[in-house]
Amino acid sequence: MIKVGIVGGAGYTAGELIRLLVNHSDVEISFIHSTSHAGCPITQVHEGLYGDTDLTFTDELPLAAIDCLFICSGHGKSKEFMASHQIPEKLKIVDFSQDYRLETEKNKFVYGLPELNKDAIAAAQYIANPGCFATCIQLGLLPLAANNLLAGDIIVNAITGSTGAGVKPGETTHFSWRDNNLSIYKPFVHQHLPEIKQSIAQLQNTFDSDIIFVPFRGDFPRGIFASIIVNCNEDVEELYRLYDSFYQTSPFVYPIRTNIDLKQVVNTNKCLIHLERHGGKLLIASCIDNLLKGASGTAVQNMNLLFGLPETEGLKLKPSAF
Amino acid sequence: MIKVGIVGGAGYTAGELIRLLVNHSDVEISFIHSTSHAGCPITQVHEGLYGDTDLTFTDELPLAAIDCLFICSGHGKSKEFMASHQIPEKLKIVDFSQDYRLETEKNKFVYGLPELNKDAIAAAQYIANPGCFATCIQLGLLPLAANNLLAGDIIVNAITGSTGAGVKPGETTHFSWRDNNLSIYKPFVHQHLPEIKQSIAQLQNTFDSDIIFVPFRGDFPRGIFASIIVNCNEDVEELYRLYDSFYQTSPFVYPIRTNIDLKQVVNTNKCLIHLERHGGKLLIASCIDNLLKGASGTAVQNMNLLFGLPETEGLKLKPSAF
Amino acid sequence: MIKVGIVGGAGYTAGELIRLLVNHSDVEISFIHSTSHAGCPITQVHEGLYGDTDLTFTDELPLAAIDCLFICSGHGKSKEFMASHQIPEKLKIVDFSQDYRLETEKNKFVYGLPELNKDAIAAAQYIANPGCFATCIQLGLLPLAANNLLAGDIIVNAITGSTGAGVKPGETTHFSWRDNNLSIYKPFVHQHLPEIKQSIAQLQNTFDSDIIFVPFRGDFPRGIFASIIVNCNEDVEELYRLYDSFYQTSPFVYPIRTNIDLKQVVNTNKCLIHLERHGGKLLIASCIDNLLKGASGTAVQNMNLLFGLPETEGLKLKPSAF
Amino acid sequence: MIKVGIVGGAGYTAGELIRLLVNHSDVEISFIHSTSHAGCPITQVHEGLYGDTDLTFTDELPLAAIDCLFICSGHGKSKEFMASHQIPEKLKIVDFSQDYRLETEKNKFVYGLPELNKDAIAAAQYIANPGCFATCIQLGLLPLAANNLLAGDIIVNAITGSTGAGVKPGETTHFSWRDNNLSIYKPFVHQHLPEIKQSIAQLQNTFDSDIIFVPFRGDFPRGIFASIIVNCNEDVEELYRLYDSFYQTSPFVYPIRTNIDLKQVVNTNKCLIHLERHGGKLLIASCIDNLLKGASGTAVQNMNLLFGLPETEGLKLKPSAF
Repeated sequence: MIKVGIVGGAGYTAGELIRLLVNHSDVEISFIHSTSHAGCPITQVHEGLYGDTDLTFTDELPLAAIDCLFICSGHGKSKEFMASHQIPEKLKIVDFSQDYRLETEKNKFVYGLPELNKDAIAAAQYIANPGCFATCIQLGLLPLAANNLLAGDIIVNAITGSTGAGVKPGETTHFSWRDNNLSIYKPFVHQHLPEIKQSIAQLQNTFDSDIIFVPFRGDFPRGIFASIIVNCNEDVEELYRLYDSFYQTSPFVYPIRTNIDLKQVVNTNKCLIHLERHGGKLLIASCIDNLLKGASGTAVQNMNLLFGLPETEGLKLKPSAF
Repeated sequence: MIKVGIVGGAGYTAGELIRLLVNHSDVEISFIHSTSHAGCPITQVHEGLYGDTDLTFTDELPLAAIDCLFICSGHGKSKEFMASHQIPEKLKIVDFSQDYRLETEKNKFVYGLPELNKDAIAAAQYIANPGCFATCIQLGLLPLAANNLLAGDIIVNAITGSTGAGVKPGETTHFSWRDNNLSIYKPFVHQHLPEIKQSIAQLQNTFDSDIIFVPFRGDFPRGIFASIIVNCNEDVEELYRLYDSFYQTSPFVYPIRTNIDLKQVVNTNKCLIHLERHGGKLLIASCIDNLLKGASGTAVQNMNLLFGLPETEGLKLKPSAF
Repeated sequence: MIKVGIVGGAGYTAGELIRLLVNHSDVEISFIHSTSHAGCPITQVHEGLYGDTDLTFTDELPLAAIDCLFICSGHGKSKEFMASHQIPEKLKIVDFSQDYRLETEKNKFVYGLPELNKDAIAAAQYIANPGCFATCIQLGLLPLAANNLLAGDIIVNAITGSTGAGVKPGETTHFSWRDNNLSIYKPFVHQHLPEIKQSIAQLQNTFDSDIIFVPFRGDFPRGIFASIIVNCNEDVEELYRLYDSFYQTSPFVYPIRTNIDLKQVVNTNKCLIHLERHGGKLLIASCIDNLLKGASGTAVQNMNLLFGLPETEGLKLKPSAF
Repeated sequence: MIKVGIVGGAGYTAGELIRLLVNHSDVEISFIHSTSHAGCPITQVHEGLYGDTDLTFTDELPLAAIDCLFICSGHGKSKEFMASHQIPEKLKIVDFSQDYRLETEKNKFVYGLPELNKDAIAAAQYIANPGCFATCIQLGLLPLAANNLLAGDIIVNAITGSTGAGVKPGETTHFSWRDNNLSIYKPFVHQHLPEIKQSIAQLQNTFDSDIIFVPFRGDFPRGIFASIIVNCNEDVEELYRLYDSFYQTSPFVYPIRTNIDLKQVVNTNKCLIHLERHGGKLLIASCIDNLLKGASGTAVQNMNLLFGLPETEGLKLKPSAF
């Protein structure tokens, strides 16, 4: 059994991670750390877990007792955590924040998108789990980059669910406001653009155009749906062959000939991709569950790779469908 | 023109009141008071008002310059306000809080349910606007009380929208939690029970049974739907006659022979009531828009009565329907 | 491996059953029968299954090749099916319709509520899977009946999601109408009342009062939440002890001291029950996922019992939570 | 009083038209035609109208008795209607279909976008009411076209509510499917593109690039939100001046410096527009209520212009806001 600990245990991604790990046959959760909720039963904070766990949050951090640590503390907090704690030599870490996603000389974390870096992840100790928008958009674009087919500006409109905004309630996550509403936020400058560009450059370093990204707040809790427009004159069937080939060892990514919709992936670790070309423009539709493939699902997939388990272990989930 | 001022102007009921008053042909809004938002345009706080008003929130309170004051500050705050301000002699007041809803010897406020107290309201200076649940449930029960037909315990299940919880975001108004969810809160002890009992006693002082009230949080922003079960052996057609008769001078209450649904009343000042009897039990279904008939709509109706205007002035609203 | 067939494979409950069975480690789906969709891939009809199955619908019925048949054809159709087909001698059947839920001398089906009839189910060949409302309400009431504590009329208000109305689109399942809406249907006379009364009589045959049932259409896809009011003067802690005791061998039913909400059970096979007493009235809040514990989840649970498997096999599901 | 008749009275746009006209002080509804619902009270088909009208649907068509006819019968049906009926000489017509939106030599209908063709509408007899997507997108683009600022491909992603799909229930308007879901339909080839291009050409006939339009089905009943990306290097403040100038006589269109969201316009006849530029790309966000500014609201606006009334008559609506 892999013994795992979770830091930042009261947030949405930690909750989702716990919902996965309680049914993972190779994992035992050793502790779930939360300073704000220490002593409180997990089931009172995280929806849907009655009967699945008797654990309570703790403010202790027995890092020496675990094999793998998940850091769910939020952006900026992971660097603080790494700097202020003695990390046991063999402890593997999956970090959910954006603190370590960009490569630098000093950064020991591997960018944890399994569809891009599977071998490096399997050989790594520290993983920087990708951003949710970044995952959905990259999975739509990487096969093109791998074939040097990206040329010209890329226009992305992508819509995320309210869980993307985190557990802390605010004006734009108030039900009265969000229900049946839509709005744009951070157009052109969303923080996930750098990691997307980094991955594209890894596959097609000649790409020097812009990525125009318009993120939307959607009126649903789970999921990201991206509409990506790129210049392209390839035959669509040929494109599907490239996508199928690129993802042939990726158990969760499905290029689909028929139209897709968001609820096909909700409560699963899947990514569905659909292509339509008209004249010189290709539309790539890509969707994921932001809390699973966009966060905790990929985190478990990365843990599976780190420990030599089948990638799908603990991730064959019943879709909610409705 | 009636000059009105609004205190507690940043909350939901104040926003709804403003949305009504900007189109009321006999009203001019003199000021909208908010200490927290002073200087801020109304349109940046209250959804849907772009182009309808150029007003900004103010922290001044020129009470002498207005004819009518609406107090939307929240429970407990109205008593504070009345105690700490010099109220001009002829100023009429409509108070949204529960501070003055219960009759006492010293209470100068008339309970502002027009369907119960129209004449008293028209003659009054100060009005205590009813609670939202209280309005929906009373309108379902009053015709029975007026005919001494209430006997035995009354079982009420009623579901309210998220706007009933106010603008301040919290755990149970977080979109991620509330969407597609349902829960009970404050069963048996909701704070609107005393005003309901007071009104029933006003019409049928022999009623001495209990009202069991189970309030639900619903996953919609607007509206209250009440299911009321009472003991009753009357013929349903006879009951409709009693209801029609009781509400014949009430322009917003409609006893309906066909089935009802909540969106029939959303964004209107209406109350729909439907009756079904089976054996000795009568089901009364009653629904309103909690922000309109349950708050700001009735407040405007009360203002109309206070100033001798037709009751429906400014309240002929396009239902949203969808 | 248990080889199973599904009849009526294009409906919601069949879809949900497939979503469960593709991950059930002891089951192999032999065929999914649908005359209307024969030849069509399952994944094009049932949301969320891309990559999980390559099956297509068939209009063949190789009953001799399977161990267990699930009949999801709709009310009235199961009797037709049984009458018009040669059923292999050892074939076990789980029927979703209401055709065989009521005991008669000729009825060979066992009423398949595991929390009530576990031993009989394990020994049976044919199972009549309970109704969704019936399950939610019975699980709230059975411990009281088992202790002869039901006395006087029972008032039930229960709200169901849109999947309860089936896959065929109609006026009250149109998104434009249903979204943010609520309505009552079939008050007093819902078709699940007889099976509820039958189960209560099985445990407390002295109960001779009425069950007043007001069903609601809710604006969410999954789930049933019931509010049940009964006369009761027992101490709540004592009641929890009775409930805990009654459900001690039931792995999916959780009497809970803290407040409950619907999404605690969505996409799980759980039933949560919460009790509150005030004076002589007890409020029992009970919630389930109508497609799982209310249909396909219990069907799999029954199949597990029929074949001697652990009751929870294939039913440890990740809740969707949001 | 303007006497009006409505053909195709049972659909969504007719219902919305009735909701507007019952409160329009210069209009009397003479008849509402529906062959399918003849004899049925309006209030039983169109949500929210109890107490507002006693009319029933009729299968008679007394065209001679009215001043203005609204045709809400659906695409293709208007041409049939015009061909098969004797139209009184002075009857004014507002047609909701796309049958007459494109200019041809024989087409006597004026394209009824008041912000583009106000004078021509006021002088016309027959009006072709614009499409909903077409309205939202054109209002975002026309000021640029009027200043010859459109250059290069235009990328539009726009999301519509379920009422855009009409009253007839179907797979993608089933609540169980649509709730919390998103999908793309008719990318590149939506039927509103020709009228958009026609209007742009009317203002900037040099524009010869493409409009890439990706329409989405959104999980809300009302509204359209468009995200439009164009090449542009103008200063944003200068652009706001152009937009303000272009819309200075348009009472319903508001270029807004602050961020916008869909519910700002729901249940109003407004269009809000917000601009953001980054490098050489301009994002134009535009939103309307698809049933009002996108259909019945503009139809009433056109009627007002046809009869010399103030454009806003009957269109000062309380936004639903929540």
